[in-house]
Amino acid sequence: MTRSERKSYSLREIKERLGGEISGDPGTQVSRVATLESAAPGSIAFFANERYLSQLKATRAGAVIVGESMRNATRLPRIVCANPYAYFARVSALLNPASSPRPGVHASAVLEDPAAIAGDAEIGPCAVIGRGVTIGAGCMIGAGCCIGDGVTIGAGSRLYPNVTVYHGCLIGERVILHSGVVIGADGFGIAMDEGRWLKVPQIGRVVIGNDVEIGANTTVDRGALDDTVIEEGVKLDNQIQIGHNVHIGAHTAIAACTGIAGSARIGRYCRIGGASGILGHLTIADNVEISTWTLVTKSIREPGTYTGAYVFERHSDWRKNAVQLRHLAKLAERVRNLEDKRAKPKRSKP
Amino acid sequence: MTRSERKSYSLREIKERLGGEISGDPGTQVSRVATLESAAPGSIAFFANERYLSQLKATRAGAVIVGESMRNATRLPRIVCANPYAYFARVSALLNPASSPRPGVHASAVLEDPAAIAGDAEIGPCAVIGRGVTIGAGCMIGAGCCIGDGVTIGAGSRLYPNVTVYHGCLIGERVILHSGVVIGADGFGIAMDEGRWLKVPQIGRVVIGNDVEIGANTTVDRGALDDTVIEEGVKLDNQIQIGHNVHIGAHTAIAACTGIAGSARIGRYCRIGGASGILGHLTIADNVEISTWTLVTKSIREPGTYTGAYVFERHSDWRKNAVQLRHLAKLAERVRNLEDKRAKPKRSKP
Amino acid sequence: MTRSERKSYSLREIKERLGGEISGDPGTQVSRVATLESAAPGSIAFFANERYLSQLKATRAGAVIVGESMRNATRLPRIVCANPYAYFARVSALLNPASSPRPGVHASAVLEDPAAIAGDAEIGPCAVIGRGVTIGAGCMIGAGCCIGDGVTIGAGSRLYPNVTVYHGCLIGERVILHSGVVIGADGFGIAMDEGRWLKVPQIGRVVIGNDVEIGANTTVDRGALDDTVIEEGVKLDNQIQIGHNVHIGAHTAIAACTGIAGSARIGRYCRIGGASGILGHLTIADNVEISTWTLVTKSIREPGTYTGAYVFERHSDWRKNAVQLRHLAKLAERVRNLEDKRAKPKRSKP
Repeated sequence: MTRSERKSYSLREIKERLGGEISGDPGTQVSRVATLESAAPGSIAFFANERYLSQLKATRAGAVIVGESMRNATRLPRIVCANPYAYFARVSALLNPASSPRPGVHASAVLEDPAAIAGDAEIGPCAVIGRGVTIGAGCMIGAGCCIGDGVTIGAGSRLYPNVTVYHGCLIGERVILHSGVVIGADGFGIAMDEGRWLKVPQIGRVVIGNDVEIGANTTVDRGALDDTVIEEGVKLDNQIQIGHNVHIGAHTAIAACTGIAGSARIGRYCRIGGASGILGHLTIADNVEISTWTLVTKSIREPGTYTGAYVFERHSDWRKNAVQLRHLAKLAERVRNLEDKRAKPKRSKP
Repeated sequence: MTRSERKSYSLREIKERLGGEISGDPGTQVSRVATLESAAPGSIAFFANERYLSQLKATRAGAVIVGESMRNATRLPRIVCANPYAYFARVSALLNPASSPRPGVHASAVLEDPAAIAGDAEIGPCAVIGRGVTIGAGCMIGAGCCIGDGVTIGAGSRLYPNVTVYHGCLIGERVILHSGVVIGADGFGIAMDEGRWLKVPQIGRVVIGNDVEIGANTTVDRGALDDTVIEEGVKLDNQIQIGHNVHIGAHTAIAACTGIAGSARIGRYCRIGGASGILGHLTIADNVEISTWTLVTKSIREPGTYTGAYVFERHSDWRKNAVQLRHLAKLAERVRNLEDKRAKPKRSKP
Repeated sequence: MTRSERKSYSLREIKERLGGEISGDPGTQVSRVATLESAAPGSIAFFANERYLSQLKATRAGAVIVGESMRNATRLPRIVCANPYAYFARVSALLNPASSPRPGVHASAVLEDPAAIAGDAEIGPCAVIGRGVTIGAGCMIGAGCCIGDGVTIGAGSRLYPNVTVYHGCLIGERVILHSGVVIGADGFGIAMDEGRWLKVPQIGRVVIGNDVEIGANTTVDRGALDDTVIEEGVKLDNQIQIGHNVHIGAHTAIAACTGIAGSARIGRYCRIGGASGILGHLTIADNVEISTWTLVTKSIREPGTYTGAYVFERHSDWRKNAVQLRHLAKLAERVRNLEDKRAKPKRSKP
């Protein structure tokens, strides 16, 4: 799955494809994308944050992409547009097109039922495809992937090597699953019964919408009874854990190492920082932002940013301060006492 | 590993198998389990928490499982029993039996030494079984699993696809390992020596008791010298990290994303919340409950519930409050000063 | 990958290889390493921490390794050296040599381009090696590993089963990658554009230096534009997440479950505790120690130890104390008010 050879485009050709406005020589050729800092002639960079103005001044890039308010911040050949970072992403995809599938089933792959594999899909070496699986047009199933019985994978999806999808799960179109992802393992359903844990069968599925991307080693558990649902456009980073029956609304993005406990319901367009946690059965409204390292312990009904991280400091200071955490209630009470005494001053002895 | 076709049972047939008492028509047929909320006629649901009484009133389920004190909370056909959730788990297992192994070694699997594989075990496609491995009766070894030299896996165990077990580890009977699990990788043993880390060979094993279940992408490191031990009936959720030489007592359950550092010793029947941590070399008594997101920094000798999570709030409030954490020791001192002055009032000038 | 049969060495033979000084009978034979506590005759243990003095007194070990100041703490045959733990690691490696590669490519492995595999490298069953891959002398590539196009792996490296390396990454010499490791998956680069997330192509590589070890299920993302870099001698434990464009300096060690966000730059010889986090774009100086469970939210310019963990306590106490966190700013203000009033005492009414 390598990217193909780099090709060169003029700013004019780029503008024809992606829009925007050119300042400077429209014949300027660029063949690669780069940061302002590491760009060489022949590279195109972007400038979206005034903090990097000195880098813009110093860059050796052949051309840059800038926002409308910054059109005059450089004299380099440039493309002016509304959203320079998004424009840059599109230019990068133009210069670094993703590899295309090599249609066909590798001789070492194992298909229990080859009927429903699209003719132009690529099934990699040592991939194992169960019974009753449907794989859509243009899919790439990487080496060593294991797809359980009855799974459906929509057109244009790409599974990197060593992904596992359990039986019955439903994957949308243009979905990307990175290596080590596990979709549809059993949720953590156990019932204590006379001193032993009894397993509660997990009979729901995982249903993943279109245009979802899931990072390496992330796990999404199947539902206990109903399904676990990841709506369209959701982006999950690496090593995230999604419990059974979680529902994640469309276009929500979650950074790495976060855990979402069972039956939590996350809204649309949420942005959840890394190493966060959301307890089970909570509801999070649309457009909520959760900061990195925050444990959400009750439902959030209103958009906004929510935070709960402990602040770090030098260990010697932390030792002195953190020990007070165990006395906070007492400290608050002592302050109240002082206030009370202040309000009712000591009687002076007669 | 799909579940077989659904079959229908009457309440009478269920009672014959699982006990309990029937109220209403014992001939009522049920063919699937469901939540109160999503149940349709033909489904059986359970009611174990009075919080869901309105759902019980509104359910379209064909029958319900209720506790003894709730026998009259509905007029639906019902099974009355001591532990409705556990009973429900058993009914679900009856209606959704786990798939049986398909005996035999897949042609694409690689066995270095086929002698010790039980005849009725299933070895999936592209599985790789090392030298001197013993696999017990009725085991299912999923596609792409890699089992190191000298491993023993007890009867009735099930390894989902892409599990890795390093050499020499011992897996009990009826153990379930979900995809991406890694058993027996080297513990983190390094010694600094003249500016370079020296690897300390990890020569212990991992020993896993009967009836253990381990969730997707969880890792259990082999012992440095002695073994890492997971006793019988332990349930580990996804993405848990168990360090070298940890000992987990029987029937302890640990939720996802928790890390247990090396040589910690956890008791029996503990319940450890998700995203928790336990430092190395600590001892946790039996029956301890650790809340989600809690770092345990010293041994716990007594049963009970222990907690250490930071509370979240709106980011603007958090900014104001969290900054005070760095001044807590000072704040406590200032309160002490105020108290001292109160005790010794200012001398009035003569 | 089992270790070979145990062999016996006399203290004299050990000293000849590893240095140090012998007290007691140099002909004492030892055949295995052990802890003081579990040692049997024929075992050699080490003593590096006075806390374990009673274990030294009680040990049944045949010999011990002690530091110079402890040469007289036992009468057992002993080796006296400057760094007993490092010496012990070397003795353990002598008694438990790592298995050697079995040269050759397993018949079930898939090589798209076999030209650049060293003749004495071992390619395990069902491993899949892409086009243009270079694998150095003496490498062991475990079963089920998937190595992307254009990857280079230096001499003497060892990949345990089910490791995935994406295209174009560069792995140094004597590198160890444990099972489930994913090197070079896409970083989390997304740009919001008119209500949808746009993927930002991740076109950098991962470059891993010599003598790096990476634990099970750890993920290291490829760079967005430039490379993600892990310098020589870095040791990463299990389930760590390294974001795109992170740079980790030589000989830094990071314990399990830690997450490093994109473009963070970590110095040399840092020691980072488990379940820690470092925010993106920060710089951490050389020789910094970060405690377990600490979120680093700003750059650290000076060596030292930094901490930010919340302290745990009984749940009933935590409930009372933690609730005060949401009132800390107010509490500090109330203390200030009391101090102000104290400074300006109430006017006595005339």
